[in-house]
Amino acid sequence: MVSDVRVLRLGHRPERDQRVTTHVALTARALGAKGMYLAANDEGVRRSVTDVANRWGGDFFVENNASWKKVIREWKDEGGIVVHLTMYGLRMTDAVDEIKEHEKVLVVVGAEKVPSDIYDLADYNISVTTQPHSEISSLALIMDRLFDGGELNREYPDAEMKIIPTERGKRFEN
Amino acid sequence: MVSDVRVLRLGHRPERDQRVTTHVALTARALGAKGMYLAANDEGVRRSVTDVANRWGGDFFVENNASWKKVIREWKDEGGIVVHLTMYGLRMTDAVDEIKEHEKVLVVVGAEKVPSDIYDLADYNISVTTQPHSEISSLALIMDRLFDGGELNREYPDAEMKIIPTERGKRFEN
Repeated sequence: MVSDVRVLRLGHRPERDQRVTTHVALTARALGAKGMYLAANDEGVRRSVTDVANRWGGDFFVENNASWKKVIREWKDEGGIVVHLTMYGLRMTDAVDEIKEHEKVLVVVGAEKVPSDIYDLADYNISVTTQPHSEISSLALIMDRLFDGGELNREYPDAEMKIIPTERGKRFEN
Repeated sequence: MVSDVRVLRLGHRPERDQRVTTHVALTARALGAKGMYLAANDEGVRRSVTDVANRWGGDFFVENNASWKKVIREWKDEGGIVVHLTMYGLRMTDAVDEIKEHEKVLVVVGAEKVPSDIYDLADYNISVTTQPHSEISSLALIMDRLFDGGELNREYPDAEMKIIPTERGKRFEN
């Protein structure tokens, strides 16, 4: 059963990809990942995501300027598997049950260009829909499948900010 | 049963939001929506999404510079319901079964700022996770729920490009 999911963001171009990578990180956090390794030097992403995590609770981490090969090597040494999201991979629906037999899953989320070795280093290359769309939506959908939807209503410890679900308008505790 | 889902993109700032809005549109298409109404004038988004749709098949549309109030009024006149995605809304998991009783669902996807009337004009204000993340992942998850995952492996008619799912590398027909 999956208990530890982390994201490795590959191919991020500083500044240019800041917004999309921030969406990747926040999606990872909101759907139950423990943290994100950013394989690029972009302190702004780390800072803004950490700021959100501090206010909204939990202990999601962002590691800036990570060496992606080292992250993968250490992850595998600890018995984790590596799942690379790519439009060209196997259908998620065909592979996800096998993936879910593992405890530790590193989800690799590439930007437009990724180093080609990742296809071989990954244990699984997985496609969500086999259509062009968004690495953010692919990540959301695989996270949701890994946890069987169980992370959608997580409570976060030590939250300064918390939404009170409501039909109209905005309510929150802080 | 849901049969016609469309997306209304609200609050888009031309140029600045182009990339995120393109991800919204491609996510909508890949998960089974018929099209997207863009409540802003940004011909570049329409052009790039239409270009993808032409090559990858199907007949997803983007309507540029749509009047959002008119889109909502006409949608309701045709018996459709309006579901606004907002961090502050009811939990998706609590509301989605009721939403799925309808045939026509317009999903409103806001950018950072949306006009406040949308909270009242929407039939449902829905939060995916009640945490800050990404309108792209929220859209992916609600689309997936609306179609019970059934749209993940859609075939697109008249596709020039088509992926052949594979364990390593990239294979496609064209």
